[in-house]
Amino acid sequence: MFWTFIDASQISGGMVRIDGKKGHHLGRVLRVRPGEPGVAVCAGREYELEVVGVEGARIVARLLNERPARGEASTRVALLQAVLPNPDLDAVLEGGTAVGIQGFVAVQAARSVGRPPAGRLARWEAIVESAAEQSHRGEIPRVAGPMTLTAALDQAGGSRLLALHPAASLPLARAVDGSPAYTIAVGPEGGWTEDELSTLRARGALAVNLGPRILRARLAPIVAAAILVQRP
Amino acid sequence: MFWTFIDASQISGGMVRIDGKKGHHLGRVLRVRPGEPGVAVCAGREYELEVVGVEGARIVARLLNERPARGEASTRVALLQAVLPNPDLDAVLEGGTAVGIQGFVAVQAARSVGRPPAGRLARWEAIVESAAEQSHRGEIPRVAGPMTLTAALDQAGGSRLLALHPAASLPLARAVDGSPAYTIAVGPEGGWTEDELSTLRARGALAVNLGPRILRARLAPIVAAAILVQRP
Repeated sequence: MFWTFIDASQISGGMVRIDGKKGHHLGRVLRVRPGEPGVAVCAGREYELEVVGVEGARIVARLLNERPARGEASTRVALLQAVLPNPDLDAVLEGGTAVGIQGFVAVQAARSVGRPPAGRLARWEAIVESAAEQSHRGEIPRVAGPMTLTAALDQAGGSRLLALHPAASLPLARAVDGSPAYTIAVGPEGGWTEDELSTLRARGALAVNLGPRILRARLAPIVAAAILVQRP
Repeated sequence: MFWTFIDASQISGGMVRIDGKKGHHLGRVLRVRPGEPGVAVCAGREYELEVVGVEGARIVARLLNERPARGEASTRVALLQAVLPNPDLDAVLEGGTAVGIQGFVAVQAARSVGRPPAGRLARWEAIVESAAEQSHRGEIPRVAGPMTLTAALDQAGGSRLLALHPAASLPLARAVDGSPAYTIAVGPEGGWTEDELSTLRARGALAVNLGPRILRARLAPIVAAAILVQRP
């Protein structure tokens, strides 16, 4: 069973046509074959498909059924994530997508190890799209950056802003107040600097912690987002 | 700053002596030196130390201060985890320790990929101890197994038993009822079999889900435990 994201232009006459890079991935890498079931997601709807034809990198599938997409959380969580070394940031994008984060902004923080070029964004988008397929999301999370903390905060309007900080006195779970949208800012392995914390506070961020245990930078944002998404 | 677990016999006369494997790790691997601060945890208390002497693999430190250990969650969470392929199970032990799990039991499930020998337990214990040091826990989580699901359930008395199952109708966060202790049973990548779910239900397990998104087997138990531990 495959899961993929398509454009409305690919649906017509009860059929879905997938070619280009996605067709290549399905036909050549995943080797889907006629008869195989799958789901294509488009504009908030899930389309149940059955593959009827594979010609190299071009897949044709019959539309069996459609329904609203179910993979999105009702609480919207965006993550302003300080740049981490490669495998860690990749893990945050992958795990964060699986737990339901709806937008990522990579922030070039003072203590970030590494300074990714602007071109890195394409790689991040590919990781997030692949994770969205694997986790059966209803949309592909947006990714932006790398950019400064100030620029990232300019994009965070309209949501409750939380800054993860080990020395904060308020547990994250107690900062949940029924808001429909949260933005959580998570620093690098060495944490946010005092300057960065001031910038965050000036934008109304509430500093929160995840308890007295030290979580690795690659795990903390995933856990924080999961707690916000999974509120009863 | 180092963090280590010691026995009461290693404390005497305001000094702490660490030798053997731990002394080797501190002196030879981490290369602690006189003047370096650290914390040793013993029987629920944290001892602030300053290294005063290093002779090869033998560390002598002065006791500066002591206080109750702060790294343990007030909600106790144990994990019955189906055996996963090596790197995934290792990641569950490491991340699960960091979020606060207090005991792990490895379960040889019907759909487990791999059948670790009994000797694997020593490796698991080493991973958990190292993760407990890194995350500044107040105790080293217990690890047991591999064993059958029935044997594992015999160890789960006195706690609220939850079985993670994607098809369950109850979200995990809604199964939290103020219990002081939870045991959560998490299956392998292919999930629990119907037989295993029957066994779990017969022991009073409540089936719970983590929402409509598919989480990798290496991430689901960490997220589930974090949600239980971090209840406000």
